[in-house]
Amino acid sequence: MTRVLYDLCGCDEGLRFSPYCWRVRYALAHKGLDFNTRAWHFTDKEALAFADYDKVPVLVDGETTVTDSYEILRYLDRAYPESPLIGDGLAAARARFFKHYAERALAPAMMRTIVMDLYNAIAPRDRDYFRETREKRFGRTLEEFHSPAKGLAQLDAALAPLRGQLEDGDFIDGEAPAAADYLVFGSFMWARVVSTADLVSNADPVYGWLERMLDLHDGTGRNAVRITDIEGAYR
Amino acid sequence: MTRVLYDLCGCDEGLRFSPYCWRVRYALAHKGLDFNTRAWHFTDKEALAFADYDKVPVLVDGETTVTDSYEILRYLDRAYPESPLIGDGLAAARARFFKHYAERALAPAMMRTIVMDLYNAIAPRDRDYFRETREKRFGRTLEEFHSPAKGLAQLDAALAPLRGQLEDGDFIDGEAPAAADYLVFGSFMWARVVSTADLVSNADPVYGWLERMLDLHDGTGRNAVRITDIEGAYR
Repeated sequence: MTRVLYDLCGCDEGLRFSPYCWRVRYALAHKGLDFNTRAWHFTDKEALAFADYDKVPVLVDGETTVTDSYEILRYLDRAYPESPLIGDGLAAARARFFKHYAERALAPAMMRTIVMDLYNAIAPRDRDYFRETREKRFGRTLEEFHSPAKGLAQLDAALAPLRGQLEDGDFIDGEAPAAADYLVFGSFMWARVVSTADLVSNADPVYGWLERMLDLHDGTGRNAVRITDIEGAYR
Repeated sequence: MTRVLYDLCGCDEGLRFSPYCWRVRYALAHKGLDFNTRAWHFTDKEALAFADYDKVPVLVDGETTVTDSYEILRYLDRAYPESPLIGDGLAAARARFFKHYAERALAPAMMRTIVMDLYNAIAPRDRDYFRETREKRFGRTLEEFHSPAKGLAQLDAALAPLRGQLEDGDFIDGEAPAAADYLVFGSFMWARVVSTADLVSNADPVYGWLERMLDLHDGTGRNAVRITDIEGAYR
């Protein structure tokens, strides 16, 4: 078994919260592919030097190394064509929108809501790095950026089209999940692992979809270690 | 020539502003199909009795009558399979998201910005109907709902994923436009026909896409009559 996923970990090696790595974990499960994970820290840049990259996910599949979650999904469709994730033609063009929807509409709203929980879940050795890079990106301190009231209002607005989609069918990709579901769900796993914040009310069609996504592939999401599973870790 | 599109008109018969009808006009042009339009008013309910429907677009194609813009796009793919609009499988599941994105994220933000321009563009005989139905939907008067500052801020946030998509390619659907482009662009045509509001700055990747969309199919969007083309109509 030579398939290895470099996977971001938090204050416990078992705490895996990267939204991008979650996309890949679900994509590998979707293809029925076995893999081992290697716990990686934000500041372990040299551990990824072999891949000429400085972030995870990095997938090593035999002789092949692939970086970037979206590129890994594309690679998996090329190398293992059965059960397409992204698909071809119009399907592929449209799949990309869900990457942007997750990264530019949902994640920023969630970040605003959970950033202090996220900071708390990060390994102590990575916290200075996280604070420095994120404060530069946000243009303010984590504490100033943190605003669950604003974040939840922003998320509520951003979820409007997803609600419509999930009133029409069980998954974003129709009767069964594929890349669009995994691209978006990764961000929800990220929040779930580090925080107990209720992002979606149980009357929301998105809630039912989250439950279905958690159960997929033998409960890979539902069984993930959360910060509350680690004694003394949740402030 | 037996193809007829019932198309909403405003204070002038040539002023065609329905976002749903614009989707269909572009879809028909995409398929290279000729059609005539029949100008329709909000209050002309009896003119659509033959279709057992009370809204436009209604497409009559020979013996076939189809209502609802999304259903018309689906019908066109079935009846004229060349140059798919929606496509099949994953492409079709994903296409539906763009309908919801246009209707639930973009249009409400635009409505907030242009509602009084829209009211002004509506045929005098339809204004009471419009005011009554919309005020009921918004839960307040048109004047109270009208807030360009809030609408533009809301639109700016809602456009974030579209910006990402259009940094990656010329059209939402990749190198050439298809259903996702038309579903979203219909809402921009709606705003363009009734209002002079600048919804998108010319530094935005969405702006370049709007220019490309206006030029498509022999400039069908760019050549559309706007409220400012009608003498004395723009307040």
